[in-house]
Amino acid sequence: MSDEREQKQGRVADTVSGLLQGGTVPEARRMLNALHPAEIADLLESFPVAERKLLWELVEEENGGEVLLQVNDEVRSGLIEEMDEAELLAATSGMDVDDLADFMQDLPKTLTGAILRSMDNQNRQRLEAVLAYPEDSAGGLMNTDTVTVRPDLSLDVVMRYLRMRGSVPELTDHLFVVSRFDHFLGVLRVSDLLTRDPASPVADVLDTEAVAIAADKPAREVAKMFEDRDLISAPVLDERGRLIGRITVDDVVDVIRDEAERSILTMAGLGDEADLFAPIWSSTRRRALWLGINLLTALLAAYVIGLFEGTIQQVVALAVLMPVVASMGGIAGTQTLTLVTRALALGQVASRNTRALLVKELGIGILNGLMWAAILAGIAVIWFGEPAIGAIIAAAMVINLFVAGLSGVGVPLMLKRLGVDPALAGGVVLTTVTDVVGFMAFLGLATIFLI
Amino acid sequence: MSDEREQKQGRVADTVSGLLQGGTVPEARRMLNALHPAEIADLLESFPVAERKLLWELVEEENGGEVLLQVNDEVRSGLIEEMDEAELLAATSGMDVDDLADFMQDLPKTLTGAILRSMDNQNRQRLEAVLAYPEDSAGGLMNTDTVTVRPDLSLDVVMRYLRMRGSVPELTDHLFVVSRFDHFLGVLRVSDLLTRDPASPVADVLDTEAVAIAADKPAREVAKMFEDRDLISAPVLDERGRLIGRITVDDVVDVIRDEAERSILTMAGLGDEADLFAPIWSSTRRRALWLGINLLTALLAAYVIGLFEGTIQQVVALAVLMPVVASMGGIAGTQTLTLVTRALALGQVASRNTRALLVKELGIGILNGLMWAAILAGIAVIWFGEPAIGAIIAAAMVINLFVAGLSGVGVPLMLKRLGVDPALAGGVVLTTVTDVVGFMAFLGLATIFLI
Repeated sequence: MSDEREQKQGRVADTVSGLLQGGTVPEARRMLNALHPAEIADLLESFPVAERKLLWELVEEENGGEVLLQVNDEVRSGLIEEMDEAELLAATSGMDVDDLADFMQDLPKTLTGAILRSMDNQNRQRLEAVLAYPEDSAGGLMNTDTVTVRPDLSLDVVMRYLRMRGSVPELTDHLFVVSRFDHFLGVLRVSDLLTRDPASPVADVLDTEAVAIAADKPAREVAKMFEDRDLISAPVLDERGRLIGRITVDDVVDVIRDEAERSILTMAGLGDEADLFAPIWSSTRRRALWLGINLLTALLAAYVIGLFEGTIQQVVALAVLMPVVASMGGIAGTQTLTLVTRALALGQVASRNTRALLVKELGIGILNGLMWAAILAGIAVIWFGEPAIGAIIAAAMVINLFVAGLSGVGVPLMLKRLGVDPALAGGVVLTTVTDVVGFMAFLGLATIFLI
Repeated sequence: MSDEREQKQGRVADTVSGLLQGGTVPEARRMLNALHPAEIADLLESFPVAERKLLWELVEEENGGEVLLQVNDEVRSGLIEEMDEAELLAATSGMDVDDLADFMQDLPKTLTGAILRSMDNQNRQRLEAVLAYPEDSAGGLMNTDTVTVRPDLSLDVVMRYLRMRGSVPELTDHLFVVSRFDHFLGVLRVSDLLTRDPASPVADVLDTEAVAIAADKPAREVAKMFEDRDLISAPVLDERGRLIGRITVDDVVDVIRDEAERSILTMAGLGDEADLFAPIWSSTRRRALWLGINLLTALLAAYVIGLFEGTIQQVVALAVLMPVVASMGGIAGTQTLTLVTRALALGQVASRNTRALLVKELGIGILNGLMWAAILAGIAVIWFGEPAIGAIIAAAMVINLFVAGLSGVGVPLMLKRLGVDPALAGGVVLTTVTDVVGFMAFLGLATIFLI
């Protein structure tokens, strides 16, 4: 986010909230609805719940639906609670089928019924087609606003048909060529429609090589495909090869954004806490779980320290220095973990290259271990004037950074095999290992050589 | 990355590396070049440097350029080192101007000269236009393959012009309407071209409201705009309002992906280490900096512990329990930090809502603090049979989780004001605070009440 945009948004926000306090509601309403729905959404997210509700009241009906689609899920459900059935029906009226399908996940069952009843037959069938697939599959992402043509028509006729139609759906970069039984034959690129001889039949121009997506393909795979092939839209086929919809790049961009979002929130154990102003109590509960898990691992580390109480009693310097060894291991391990987790997500780690990866990361661990061991040893000796402690902490450091490299590679691979998301659990498991090994190595060596 | 895709890629990878070892090079070459350039790129990234070079030799020339554009910067520069001038010129020949501009950043100066010389005048001027802007600005992202028309033409004439032209650039969803002096007037949507009356003049159909982007707009702002408005392409104007190029959604998708990538690598202090198999020594150096910074903060925490050596000597249990208090603070603080850093990036945190945010996070800190303090106190009492220690660790826990909430909000805001990227430095600063406060509170209280 650049300062410019931010400042603009900031200015509007400040003015609006000022106007609200000042009670000059009409002015605030005007300013708010002058913004693009996506900007209104950003703005709503940035207000505490109470003010957010006030603001939401001011959003005009024709913006309502689009804004609801742009705010994050958590904020959305908060806003929906504020709306009565009539308002919700109005908000959904303008939505594309794919957006509507997502949206309905957040609605009370009673309402989804009302919405379905409020639709004409064709749209209802389309919506039900989308709802039939999981939200994070190609079928769930798809829209049903496909424009189809037959192969035997001439481009000229197609153009007349489009003129008669009067409009084409947004993000239409090609029309879909289908048989009489809706069987997908290929795509007719708009660019070809514009540049090829109008007399020639669609059959001569259609591209049969175009990417077609199976309805059950996972959303992230669809995203990767759009990214790799620079697609704007792609046809979605059912298991019998019939065209049932299309996916457009705008929805794919959202998938990519959400994925990135989630992985960052997940690493901090925030789960789906996306609302900056989620109610205190619900946030507390959500975060408590993560803290509880961490408490267990911290107690495990504490237990290891407890094994050496006697040693610490005799050489208190150990208690002073032991966190350094543990934390350096945690940092080094996290670096490897991040790299490997990312590579796993890209499908770039396999048995064939695990060994090479391990060798590299262990090498880095040893090299950095030796370097920082030397420095830390020097500091320890100067600090406590006890060469033995320097030697011991140096050894512990090398051991822990070696183990950090080992588990930075091993932990995510293991978690993946266990079917656990490395992005979620990797950090906790890894730091537990580096803490335990760090304390164990340092205090253990001290017990052997100092006592 | 889904298993399916991964397995497919895995199978190819295994077979290819098998074939290479087996020495049946032609077979390997065939398999490799049967893949989409983006898939070849993924594959290359997943091989250790030595094998990667072998594989790169097998990539056919017509794929070379596209593959080079798809691999990450670090891998790319590795591959470029393997290529002689002729190969590089061949690779660049097919590239779009915007891709070429990025690509040239990685080339030795001598070669950029050669490339410029190898181009015809028009393309050279176009390239120089793009190179005139920073890589991460609209001007750096833009391509110069714009199709422009005059307002006084009829749609019919425009269509004939396009047919004469024989093709339109990829991702063309509208043509650009300009005055005789290249002054941007608006866009002519392809959808309108297809659906409106051919006799009507462009002037009646053109959209003057269409988004136009200033060449110096930062890339991330451009990305946000494409995302908010669901754009496929947008015109880029120079400071005098003349059309100098266009940005297409495929480049924007890359911007979004890279941003997400970078923020994750940055949080681990990996900087731009994107190559899974970067040379050990260079990776070691890159990561050493981060470890060095962490060593300083760890020593600071150690110093704090050192202040209480006497206390620890008398009550060793304190040494056992102190890491628990510190680590719980670190976890809780990181949760707040992650949420606030993200909101900052979205421009959603400003003076107007900082207070509300702080109140919420402090509330969460206190609630979770009390809850886990009670539990931890119980454990401590059972473990060491010393009620006083339970009371003290409970108090320290509440204090540290309160401070964690405080600095989770305060640290990123402060860093931003100082012009430091919160995603980079936030974690280190925060955990330093929670470590220091954790040890200080726990050992301090113990010194007061136990000794």
